[in-house]
Amino acid sequence: MVKAVEWIDDRVRILDQSKLPHEVTFIDCTDHLLVADAIKTLKIRGAPAIGIAAAMGLARAAQDISASGFDEFMKALEPIMDTLLMTRPTAVNIKWAMERMKKLLLKNRDESIDRLKALLIDEAKAILEEDIEVNKAIGIWGAQFIRDGDTVLTHCNAGALATGGYGTATAPILVAKEQGKSVRVVADETRPVLQGARLTAWELMQAGVDVTVITDNSAGALMRKGEIDLCIVGTDRTVRNGDVANKIGTYMVAVLARENDIPFYVAAPLSSIDFSIPSGDMIPIELRPDEEVTHIRGQQITPDGVKVLNMAFDVTPAKYVTAIITEKGAFRPKDIKKLTYRGVNLEELRIKA
Amino acid sequence: MVKAVEWIDDRVRILDQSKLPHEVTFIDCTDHLLVADAIKTLKIRGAPAIGIAAAMGLARAAQDISASGFDEFMKALEPIMDTLLMTRPTAVNIKWAMERMKKLLLKNRDESIDRLKALLIDEAKAILEEDIEVNKAIGIWGAQFIRDGDTVLTHCNAGALATGGYGTATAPILVAKEQGKSVRVVADETRPVLQGARLTAWELMQAGVDVTVITDNSAGALMRKGEIDLCIVGTDRTVRNGDVANKIGTYMVAVLARENDIPFYVAAPLSSIDFSIPSGDMIPIELRPDEEVTHIRGQQITPDGVKVLNMAFDVTPAKYVTAIITEKGAFRPKDIKKLTYRGVNLEELRIKA
Repeated sequence: MVKAVEWIDDRVRILDQSKLPHEVTFIDCTDHLLVADAIKTLKIRGAPAIGIAAAMGLARAAQDISASGFDEFMKALEPIMDTLLMTRPTAVNIKWAMERMKKLLLKNRDESIDRLKALLIDEAKAILEEDIEVNKAIGIWGAQFIRDGDTVLTHCNAGALATGGYGTATAPILVAKEQGKSVRVVADETRPVLQGARLTAWELMQAGVDVTVITDNSAGALMRKGEIDLCIVGTDRTVRNGDVANKIGTYMVAVLARENDIPFYVAAPLSSIDFSIPSGDMIPIELRPDEEVTHIRGQQITPDGVKVLNMAFDVTPAKYVTAIITEKGAFRPKDIKKLTYRGVNLEELRIKA
Repeated sequence: MVKAVEWIDDRVRILDQSKLPHEVTFIDCTDHLLVADAIKTLKIRGAPAIGIAAAMGLARAAQDISASGFDEFMKALEPIMDTLLMTRPTAVNIKWAMERMKKLLLKNRDESIDRLKALLIDEAKAILEEDIEVNKAIGIWGAQFIRDGDTVLTHCNAGALATGGYGTATAPILVAKEQGKSVRVVADETRPVLQGARLTAWELMQAGVDVTVITDNSAGALMRKGEIDLCIVGTDRTVRNGDVANKIGTYMVAVLARENDIPFYVAAPLSSIDFSIPSGDMIPIELRPDEEVTHIRGQQITPDGVKVLNMAFDVTPAKYVTAIITEKGAFRPKDIKKLTYRGVNLEELRIKA
C-alpha cells in the first residue's frame, strides 16, 4: 500500500502528491519547515495525513532542540507548533495532533529531554498506526451500506493518500470489495486541485477498484439517471451539530444526493470531529491562491487579470447527511454530539443498513 | 462587439474559440467541411452561433454546386445538411437552421439556381441579424429581474460568443448595465471545456462587466452564503414541457438555486425551443471525447488508461426553472407550450419582476 507519510531514518518522508499521477517522488524532510511547506503547498493533503505529518514534523524539530529543562524545551516547541498549525486553517487534525503531542509532554514532564524526544517520535508513529486501525474500523462500519453491484460516488480524495493508509471514504469500498461485493466508484475530478482525477483515480486503480472519472459538473446528471447508489466523502472538520466541512463542492453533491433520494455518507474519524464548535457556519474556510483556479499544470486557462474566488472548502449542513461513519460506528449527524456524553450507549445510537 | 461568425468575402469566418482567451484567430472556411469541423471541435459553440454557422456553411457549399434544376440542387444539398446536422446532436438550432433554409428553397423552387444560391446567402445573413435582434429583446425582457447591485451567476457561455452577438444569458446583464444598474457576474468555469473561465470571463471583461471566475464546485457555497441574487443560463434545447437541456452542470446549479431560494432563469430564443419533444428525458445527450476530461490545454491530469464519462449536457427539469426568457417575454416553463397555441394572449402569460 502506498504511504502518504512515513518516519524513515529519523526523517519525515512525504510522497509528493502534487506530482501524482505523473511522477512518484518523495520529499525527505530534515526539518519541520519542509513539512510545513509540504502541507501548505498540498504536496501532502487530506485531514488525517496532514495531522500525522504535523506530528512527525514536530517530533523531527524536537530532535534539534537544545534545552536544559522541560520549560525551556516546551518554549522552544511552541513556535514550531504554531508554524505547523498555521499551514491549513480548516482541518482540525493538525490542532488535534499538536494537542496530543503537548499532552504527552506534560504527562512526562519529569522525564529527561532525550527521553521526551524519543517519546515524541514514538507518539507520531503511533498516530500513524492508529490512523490505519481507525480507517479499517470505518471500513467495516461503512461496508454494510454498500450492496453487491453498487456504484459509489466520491468527491475529492479521502483515500489512502489522505490518511496514514486505507483511507476514510475509500475504506468502506475496500472492505466491501474484500467481502466479495462488486463495487464501482465514480470519482469527481474535484477542481481546482483535481484530487479526484489525480489521486483517487490513481490509488483506486492501484487497488484494482473499477473507477470512472467525471467532471464535478456531471455528478448531478448521473444521480438523476439513477446511476449512483450512494455517496461517501471524507471530511476536514465535522462539528458538534453534525455539519460537515469538506472539499469545495461537497455541499453540492450532498444537495443533489438528497434531491435524488441517494444516501450521502461522511467517513469521519473521531479525530476530525471538532466537538468544541457548535455549528458549521463557525468553521473557518480557507481561501487559497487564485493560481489554483487560473492555471492547471502550469497552463493558464483564464484571461489575464480576471478576478477569482477560491474557497477550498464548503460546509454541508447536517440535514443533508444520512450518516457519519466513524471508527465507533455509523451515527445520525444529530447524534454525533452524544459521543461526548458520559456513559452513552453506542449500540443504541448506531444506525444499521 | 466581437463576432463569433460572419459572412465575409463569400467565406464563413469563424473566430476560433478553442484558442481563447490566449489568441484571437479566425478560420476562413472555404467549404462546409471546415464549418462542420469547427462546430464539431468546438472552435465555434453555443446553440445560436452554431445554427448561424451551419446556415452559412450550407450557403457556402451551395455556391459550389452545379445543378441543372431544382431537384438536382436539393439532392446535392441533402448530404451537406446531414453533415452539418451530425456535428452536434443536442442543440436544436442546427436542425432549425437547416429547416429554415430548406423551406426557403421550397418556397422559391421556380427561381434559377443562381438566384437560389444568392437567396441562401441572404438567408444565412438574415439568421445572424435576427439573432442579434432576438438577443436584444431577451435582454430587455430579462433585465427587469436584475436589481441594482445584484450578483448574477452564470454557467458556461451563453454570451456574444455563443450567438450572433449580444448573447442570450448575457443580454439581460448588458441591458441592466445600460439601464444604469450596478451588476456583478460570477462565472462558473464550466469544466470540461472551460467556456466560463475562457469565454464568458473574456467577453464580459471586454464589455466592462465586473466578473469573477469560480470553480463549478464553488457555486453552491456562494449561494448558501447569500452572495448570489439570481442565476441566468442559456440553453441548447428547451422542450415542450419546459425542461431545459444545457451544458453539463446546469442541473446542479438549478437544484442548488432552488434549495437556496434563488431565482433561476433560462434565456432561450424561440429557435432553441423544440416544441416537438414533450419531455427533457427524450433529448439526445451528446457524449464527447474522454480527452476533454483527461487533458486540459494539452496537459494530462488523470492516470494513464483511466475510465472516463463525458456527457456534454444535462437536463434541468422545468420545476427548477423560475422563468424562461424569450424574445417574446419571460414565461413560466409550464406555459412555454402555450406559445404554439393559436391566438394565445402573450401579455397574460408573461411574468413580471
